[in-house]
Amino acid sequence: MSADLDFPRWSAAHLGQVESALDRWVLAGAPAGLGEAMRYAVLDGGKRLRPLLVMAAAEAVGGDLQAGLRAACAVELIHAYSLVHDDMPCMDNDVLRRGKPTVHVRFGEAQALLAGDALQALAFELLTPPATEMPDRIQASLCRLLARAAGHDGMAGGQAIDLASVGHALGEDELRQMHRLKTGALLRCSVMLGAACAEPTDAARQALARYGDAIGLAFQVVDDILDVTADSATLGKTAGKDAAQDKPTYVSLMGLDRSRAYAAALFDEAVSALAASGLPDTRALRALATMVIQRAH
Amino acid sequence: MSADLDFPRWSAAHLGQVESALDRWVLAGAPAGLGEAMRYAVLDGGKRLRPLLVMAAAEAVGGDLQAGLRAACAVELIHAYSLVHDDMPCMDNDVLRRGKPTVHVRFGEAQALLAGDALQALAFELLTPPATEMPDRIQASLCRLLARAAGHDGMAGGQAIDLASVGHALGEDELRQMHRLKTGALLRCSVMLGAACAEPTDAARQALARYGDAIGLAFQVVDDILDVTADSATLGKTAGKDAAQDKPTYVSLMGLDRSRAYAAALFDEAVSALAASGLPDTRALRALATMVIQRAH
Repeated sequence: MSADLDFPRWSAAHLGQVESALDRWVLAGAPAGLGEAMRYAVLDGGKRLRPLLVMAAAEAVGGDLQAGLRAACAVELIHAYSLVHDDMPCMDNDVLRRGKPTVHVRFGEAQALLAGDALQALAFELLTPPATEMPDRIQASLCRLLARAAGHDGMAGGQAIDLASVGHALGEDELRQMHRLKTGALLRCSVMLGAACAEPTDAARQALARYGDAIGLAFQVVDDILDVTADSATLGKTAGKDAAQDKPTYVSLMGLDRSRAYAAALFDEAVSALAASGLPDTRALRALATMVIQRAH
Repeated sequence: MSADLDFPRWSAAHLGQVESALDRWVLAGAPAGLGEAMRYAVLDGGKRLRPLLVMAAAEAVGGDLQAGLRAACAVELIHAYSLVHDDMPCMDNDVLRRGKPTVHVRFGEAQALLAGDALQALAFELLTPPATEMPDRIQASLCRLLARAAGHDGMAGGQAIDLASVGHALGEDELRQMHRLKTGALLRCSVMLGAACAEPTDAARQALARYGDAIGLAFQVVDDILDVTADSATLGKTAGKDAAQDKPTYVSLMGLDRSRAYAAALFDEAVSALAASGLPDTRALRALATMVIQRAH
């Protein structure tokens, strides 16, 4: 860990791999326009934070990098499907995402619903290539982690709490629980998917879980800060929405200054977990934690 | 295969196992009413044809029956989620299912969307218990089969064709392709999930695939026949809907008599595939084929 990591270069190389793999694996050939809607939802969009976390963690543990690339794309498909469904009229009713019309605006609600459903299935398809391409043990571990992070005790559960919370006064603990599930579970899962591409020590695995928890929470705190401090053009989505919908956020609960201090403390926690992991090179994971804290959108 | 199978008894015993496993695995505890909506969508409803196919196939190949029970429940969760989403206003806009208000009528559209999403994730969760409970190889095989059958090249793809077909004149080949994906893929998958609970010979596996294809198609042909010959009370859903929506069906394409003859031919194909499988006892699978053809709803 002596030399500094050239993170822009690391990031560009890995983003290139992810984009090209997504382009290859999310096929336009799916019937009756479904493939087109799926590709629209996934390609040319987003920071790819989750895939980068998977690949950085897979490299940190010396894991199988082909498995890492599949897991990176799988978690991004889960993220993408959740955005498609979340934007629908019966949920957030949002018309703008990453600066483009949302999937249901472009393809209709029914196709958006199906595209989201098919993206979730495709995530598990990517994790289960023929057994000759990836050991069964890794396939099973990756599916196990992703299913739990996506479902009722993860992302979908968090969204249900979010749904029930509009206009309600949530306490800090409830807010943390909601975000731990809604966005935290998938971010933590990204780190653990990377870790599952090898067989790290229990100590390393636990340290990576701590790291994942910390950046998962930090991500949401920063998101809430940006919702009140950034404009729609910078965000690529409608700013100020949470406040307008009277949704509870860290900022509405703690105020802006305490929210910023909390984000900084979570960054320190993430960095200290990496130091405790005993892994020889966690520079990319550290750089990703910095990116989570410093992102403008 | 000398003695006759007491199918009502076989069926009741296996249904009991499935109902009790679903009741145990689809937990009410999921946050903010999500668990309640998931359970409403899954419990006390349906013929459980897919789970019974999984278990009959698992027994026919002498497979791991704990894996069979998990796979049986997983495929039913995929089926259940597809009905929840299919009933939503932006799709079929149906208010009655199995004689009860549909999930979105009872819990609202947003919760129905999330419940469907969470049920799909839960299906993969059931297939990936701790490695000590089921061999990694079987876990990976089951996830591989289910992901493909549920996604763009299976059920979701078939629904996209269905969506695009309303009011269009489909040819017989296109209609068969739509149903091969929309309902056939999951029925065939049920049989193959059961087969994957052991390591049957290639010949047996191929014969079971032929059986699965035949009953998958037969199921849809019979469904189309029932849509015009049965009433809503018997069906537990709105009868005559396809005709009213000008959806192409086997009956609209071939007429009632030819549709009935086609269903009978598919039954013969299914039975001949079982005979060719070389498996010692396929009586439950044969009885299930009979059930598919003879069902009143």
